[in-house]
Amino acid sequence: MTESNVQQMTSTSPYDAIYDPVRPELQSVIVNIASLAEEQGSHEGAMAERLEHVLSAPGKRLRPAITLLASRLWRNPSELDVMMGTAVELLHIATLIHDDTVDAADTRRGRETASNLWGRNVAVLLGDYVFAAAARFVCDTNSVRLVRRFSETIMELARGELNELLDGQDSHVTRESYYQRIYDKTASLFTTASESGAVLGSAHESEILLLRNYGYKLGMAYQVLDDVLDYDSTSEELGKPVGNDLKEGILTLPAIMLIEAEPESNPVFDWFKSAVDARDDGPAEIDADALDAAIKAVRESGYIEESRKVALGWIDEAQESLSGLPNTEERVALETLADLTGGRTS
Amino acid sequence: MTESNVQQMTSTSPYDAIYDPVRPELQSVIVNIASLAEEQGSHEGAMAERLEHVLSAPGKRLRPAITLLASRLWRNPSELDVMMGTAVELLHIATLIHDDTVDAADTRRGRETASNLWGRNVAVLLGDYVFAAAARFVCDTNSVRLVRRFSETIMELARGELNELLDGQDSHVTRESYYQRIYDKTASLFTTASESGAVLGSAHESEILLLRNYGYKLGMAYQVLDDVLDYDSTSEELGKPVGNDLKEGILTLPAIMLIEAEPESNPVFDWFKSAVDARDDGPAEIDADALDAAIKAVRESGYIEESRKVALGWIDEAQESLSGLPNTEERVALETLADLTGGRTS
Repeated sequence: MTESNVQQMTSTSPYDAIYDPVRPELQSVIVNIASLAEEQGSHEGAMAERLEHVLSAPGKRLRPAITLLASRLWRNPSELDVMMGTAVELLHIATLIHDDTVDAADTRRGRETASNLWGRNVAVLLGDYVFAAAARFVCDTNSVRLVRRFSETIMELARGELNELLDGQDSHVTRESYYQRIYDKTASLFTTASESGAVLGSAHESEILLLRNYGYKLGMAYQVLDDVLDYDSTSEELGKPVGNDLKEGILTLPAIMLIEAEPESNPVFDWFKSAVDARDDGPAEIDADALDAAIKAVRESGYIEESRKVALGWIDEAQESLSGLPNTEERVALETLADLTGGRTS
Repeated sequence: MTESNVQQMTSTSPYDAIYDPVRPELQSVIVNIASLAEEQGSHEGAMAERLEHVLSAPGKRLRPAITLLASRLWRNPSELDVMMGTAVELLHIATLIHDDTVDAADTRRGRETASNLWGRNVAVLLGDYVFAAAARFVCDTNSVRLVRRFSETIMELARGELNELLDGQDSHVTRESYYQRIYDKTASLFTTASESGAVLGSAHESEILLLRNYGYKLGMAYQVLDDVLDYDSTSEELGKPVGNDLKEGILTLPAIMLIEAEPESNPVFDWFKSAVDARDDGPAEIDADALDAAIKAVRESGYIEESRKVALGWIDEAQESLSGLPNTEERVALETLADLTGGRTS
């Protein structure tokens, strides 16, 4: 497992510039994560094998990279940032395990999910174990402040997923509740990743705030751009159906903008109404015409581009936060990450 | 919610003697737990309502009572034990939510489970939220030692449930792996409950160890007696089928003792083999005769009584641990709890 990750990391990619300043530390994070599966005694072979599978999933390791860069920007970096980076990545992994279980997803990035391989019960408990292991790694920082922030992040992640589930097919989702939801499910962990690095790097409170804001804005932009991609024709080429969120009854920024502009009547309302009617009539049947009309309306509305502009505004604000920090290679790496997230390759 | 709990607590029961020394603190724990549902903003009404349901489930509150008693045994009790007691009870509640989801249980103590009411997805995420909220309460103790122990406890709880699931229908479960499993799923949290109280009460390390041992032995006995009850004819009168664990393919102490005595061939092996054969032949069909024969063999073996003796031995060791501590009303309450757990009413 570790080997393939290293290979993946060392192959040339635009992300290399982000990893370069913290490559050995990121390698330690990967080793820490792998060691979790080895922690189990041999009599627990079945559990160790399952853990090994979920822990060896490939990933870009963006979140731990943020923590390490935010810590090593300062003159007194703490070796403990490796523990925090491990925790941040484990939390991300645990979230994916429970998300895939909730979504009943068969595969993620071409690998079978835990729930698909061993059933949802095993997946739920594996996720619990990884959540708790993440929290234990935060304890290695000896910082109650960071543990508290981490616990709150887990609460926010769960709340975000829960509200997405509970808001499903609800056409009254406002832009504010959408922003709250994407903070909870995505930006919260990005915020924790950058803030915790700054705390461990012994940055001043004002500097911690700047890095916190960087993570927050980056995370918000990241999720909006991901949501926009769902309406993009190029995602279809990537094997993902266009308009899947809308199909699942989830409103994201482009559709919310459309509803704001046409609050009385619009094709999104028509589609939601047809879906609810179908449900009331017994087993849900999809009104494909209504769904297509809603997706077409959003795609032709110009709100895709509007949403992208909102995200790019946040990317700019993330960059501004960095401008007040020491001009080190770590800062340049964080700037590059923001550029790449915004789709600008420098 | 809070009212019914108070009523339940103030009605006369043999457990009154346990609660009496810490009644106001236990009431604060209950208020803290209820406040979690109110923490949600009004736009998250659906989530708050669901949280309120899972948090208002009645319970004996034994674990927080242990924490409070173990803390207030000492001359310098810390008010922070209320936060720890809240965390301990929330962790117990989160575990029950995920257990009921994994078991697909419809009701618990006469109330519909979260998974039954709102589906397993909502239940998984509600459980995650409560786990994280529990961890946040531990942070209020400002003790990294306690947060670490708490994280480990969550890992142990998940591991215990996972191994019970993975060991299902495995006839090679040894007494050692059974003890490990019941430590993980039950005694770990009892241990944390008593140990954390002692830590917060500023007890000496040797005294912390005694209270830790009390919680450990009490928890082990508690689970063995619960497992024994599954073979008890009186549980049938309580509406629970006798031999349910064996039906689910789970070996507990009485059956393990039988296998130890007859390792070549016995009715438990026959039943497991018939269950596996049925599974291989397609949709599992239960060989009711084989199951009945196995249950009968365990019940008539004398190992029910043997298992009870093991548990009572642990109860005695729990009492011995207490004998080295100051003779306060809190210590008497902990002694009474051990007596009641062992089925002795004083």
